This record gives sequence, C-alpha cells and structure tokens, in this order.
Amino acid sequence: MILIKIGGSVFSDKRGEPENFRTDVVEEIARELAEFYPDEKFVIVHGGGSFGHHYAKEYSIREGLSGSWGIDSWRRLGFSLTHQSMLRANSKFVEIFTDHNLPGFSISTSSLFITERGEILYADIEVIEKLLELDFIPILFGDVSVDVAQGIDILSGDQIMAYLTKMLKPKKAIFLMDVDGIYDGKPGEGTLIPELAREEVPALLERLHCTAAGTDVTGGICNKLRKAYEMAHYSEVWFVNGKVPGRLSGAIRGDGFGTRLR
Amino acid sequence: MILIKIGGSVFSDKRGEPENFRTDVVEEIARELAEFYPDEKFVIVHGGGSFGHHYAKEYSIREGLSGSWGIDSWRRLGFSLTHQSMLRANSKFVEIFTDHNLPGFSISTSSLFITERGEILYADIEVIEKLLELDFIPILFGDVSVDVAQGIDILSGDQIMAYLTKMLKPKKAIFLMDVDGIYDGKPGEGTLIPELAREEVPALLERLHCTAAGTDVTGGICNKLRKAYEMAHYSEVWFVNGKVPGRLSGAIRGDGFGTRLR
Repeated sequence: MILIKIGGSVFSDKRGEPENFRTDVVEEIARELAEFYPDEKFVIVHGGGSFGHHYAKEYSIREGLSGSWGIDSWRRLGFSLTHQSMLRANSKFVEIFTDHNLPGFSISTSSLFITERGEILYADIEVIEKLLELDFIPILFGDVSVDVAQGIDILSGDQIMAYLTKMLKPKKAIFLMDVDGIYDGKPGEGTLIPELAREEVPALLERLHCTAAGTDVTGGICNKLRKAYEMAHYSEVWFVNGKVPGRLSGAIRGDGFGTRLR
Repeated sequence: MILIKIGGSVFSDKRGEPENFRTDVVEEIARELAEFYPDEKFVIVHGGGSFGHHYAKEYSIREGLSGSWGIDSWRRLGFSLTHQSMLRANSKFVEIFTDHNLPGFSISTSSLFITERGEILYADIEVIEKLLELDFIPILFGDVSVDVAQGIDILSGDQIMAYLTKMLKPKKAIFLMDVDGIYDGKPGEGTLIPELAREEVPALLERLHCTAAGTDVTGGICNKLRKAYEMAHYSEVWFVNGKVPGRLSGAIRGDGFGTRLR
C-alpha cells in the first residue's frame, strides 16, 4: 500500500477565491494512479487549501472551546461549517476518482480521530483497513477534531499521514507539494536534496531554523520534515511536486524527481 | 439525551425526483428542537428518502461484493456514490440546523460502523459521546457499510437507532414518520395506538403479519416495531408524525399525539 498526501496548495490556491479547486491537477493525479491501481493499493489524505482554512480562521477553531457559552455557541457552529467545507473539497476528489474508475471512498476524519491539543490521541481505523482489503481507496482529509484538552481543535493532514504510516506501515508515503521537494534552504532558493538519510534530518531542521515551534517560514516544510522523520521509522518517504505531470508516477515507481527520505 | 430518527419519507418524497428535499419540514423540526436545546441534548439519525436509495438500488449494493472483478469494480463505485448522495442529504440538515443556531455536526456512519449482513457488528462511538459532552448535536444517517460477511452492505437508520439506544441509553427515542404513529392494521386503515406496552408488541407484530422476514407491506413499520421492541429495554420509544408541526415537541415534552411505547 502507498500512502499519498495531496497538499492543499497542490489542488487549490490558498490566496485565491474561497473554495477554488484545480480540477485539472486532481484529474492528472487520478490518471497517474489509475495506471497502478489495482496492482497497487492507495490511501489518500488531502489538505484544506482554500476550503477549511477560511472557516477555521474565521471561527478561531484552534483556540478550542472557552467555557463562555456565547463564544462557544458561535464556535461550535464554525466547527461544523469547517467540516462541511472540507467535505465539499473531499466530494470533488471522490467525484474525479470515481470518474476515473478509481473507487475512492470518503472517510470523515473527524468521525474517527480524537486529538489532544491537535496531536492524534486515538483513532479506530478498522473501517479503513477493511476498505483496503476490499480494494477501495480511502480518501481522508485534514479536518476539525474533538480534542480532549480543549474541546475542539484542528487535525492536519500531515498528522494523519504520520499516524497512518505508523498504523498501516505502507511501503511508501508520498507528499505531493507545490515545490519540487525538500530544499537545503527556502524552497526555490536553496538546493533541492534528491536523497536524504533519516539521520541527516535533525541537522537539516537546524539549518532551516526549524528548531523553535511556530517560526515556520518555509511553508510548512519544518512540520512536514519533523513528521517525515517519525515516519521514516516505518516507511520510505517521498516529497514531490504534485503539480507537475509524471512526478507522482516517478515516486510510485521509485525513480522519480524529488526528495527521497530513506 | 433524546435520540431522534427523521424518516426518509418525512424530509423527502421517495417517489419524486432524485434528491428532492423538504426544506420547510426540516426547518420546522429545527425550530422545535431549538426550543429545547441546550437544556436538552439530541442525537439525530436521518434516513435516505430520495437520496441514497436510488444509487443503492441501481448498483445493487445489498448484494455485496461478488468475487467477480468486473461486477465488483462497478459496485465499488456505486458504494462510494451512494455515500456521497447521503452526504448531500446530510449537508442540508447541517445547514438548516446551523442556520437555527443548533450545532448539528455531521457524522459519517460508514466511517464508524461495521456490519454483518446489514446488522451492526461493531462501532466505536467515542467521538459521538464526546460531541454530546461538548453540547454538539451529532447528525448520523442511514448509509453504506463495510460488511464482514459480504464485503459491503446497507445500514439502515432504524438499525443505528437501536444500536445508539443500547449504547447511549437516551431517556427517549423518537421516530418521526409520515403517519401519525403505530396503527393496529395498515397505516391510515387501522386504529392508531396511543399507548403500547413492550409486552404487547409480539402480538401486534403477528396481527400486522410481520412474522415472515421481507413481507413488509406496512412501509417499514414491521422492522421499526421489531427494533422498538429491542429499544424499549433501554428507553421510552415514541412514534409521531414528523410532517405535522408540534408533534415532535409533544413527544419531547411527553404529552404529544402519536404512539408511546413504554
């Protein structure tokens, strides 16, 4: 099984109109997957892009429930609306996948996962495992979450990737991004790193100034690298450009252009 | 907590256009619930109506996976499309609820429930329990299901009602239908039964010719009654007309018009 994260910036423009969706990009992804399915099994996780983030920010979901009935009443509505927005993104993936004869099946992340300050505490993934046995392609997504510490929070697609890698032990986990891979420096400025050993990651995190939490100037690369460092225990991890045709296929075959973390 | 099933025939016309939805009926339901929330907590389960059934029938989901790759490839797509259709119905409920300041939150039944020939084998409902603690109103629905016996199947809203009654022990479970309650005979022909004791149910099932499976001429009443017979172990069960304003409120208060099963 191969686990694939489709980053929000791959299928949509976060700075564009609310809920814009790059149908052409996702169609190309589906075409490439259709060349490998059913010999290869897949689990997909997609990000929020221009969908969930807007509501999550407007209703400050990450702050959790406050204990004040007025604020919480309003935030509960936002929690629900954020999920509905993510379901709209997800339905576009399912539609494109089924149009390409790929049995993508929507899994509502928030129905399954419980977090503690946004970190996954627990999830019963038996349905996902059974769907894989039956040759379905489960499609999960970054979503809101019930949180034991603060009532509600946001669960990122990258966290789901790390959790599923640990639980399902895919032979490969692939991050589709809107850059060519991991750079030794800011994306586009530094040098692309084609091969990276797990033990080289801590030094790279330091060079990228990823040490302090919340100072991520590299468009989420720090957090991805930290998660990839955990994931590399269980699986080979690839970072490739999801907007360039053929790069996903290259990562699936293992001879592609991007960054391979051994 | 009060558990409420909104029957498919209440919010939509099964014989009408695909995916027709009675916004006015669901708005009235939301208005009535808003009079009791947050003093009262609710869990909602809705049926398929003109949404899921169409796809479920077209792709004969109830037959399960066959072992033939050709048939199964096609049926897997239908499984996914049936769920998407139910999500479209569900999103209308969430929208109307949140418009009425009710924090209805979509729970994807198929992400949680595993069946064996359509009967619930297992579900981890921890997210539902936590949502209730946080004053959300979880909204579930009849859906497709991963099935250990035949790969895939359909899980009815009535089955979910029985399962949640056993697990969550609501003080009351209410079935909203498009008739006034349980009749001693065909709906509209026999006499409406205002009060029914649990021990009277087996005799009534016989009078309604509900003994043989699959000979249900009373529009699903046989199956509902069988489930209600199980549920009455744990909770009072009401059957009321969901299309008549005020009937739901009457059942919530306990002085309403319909059938009460003690």
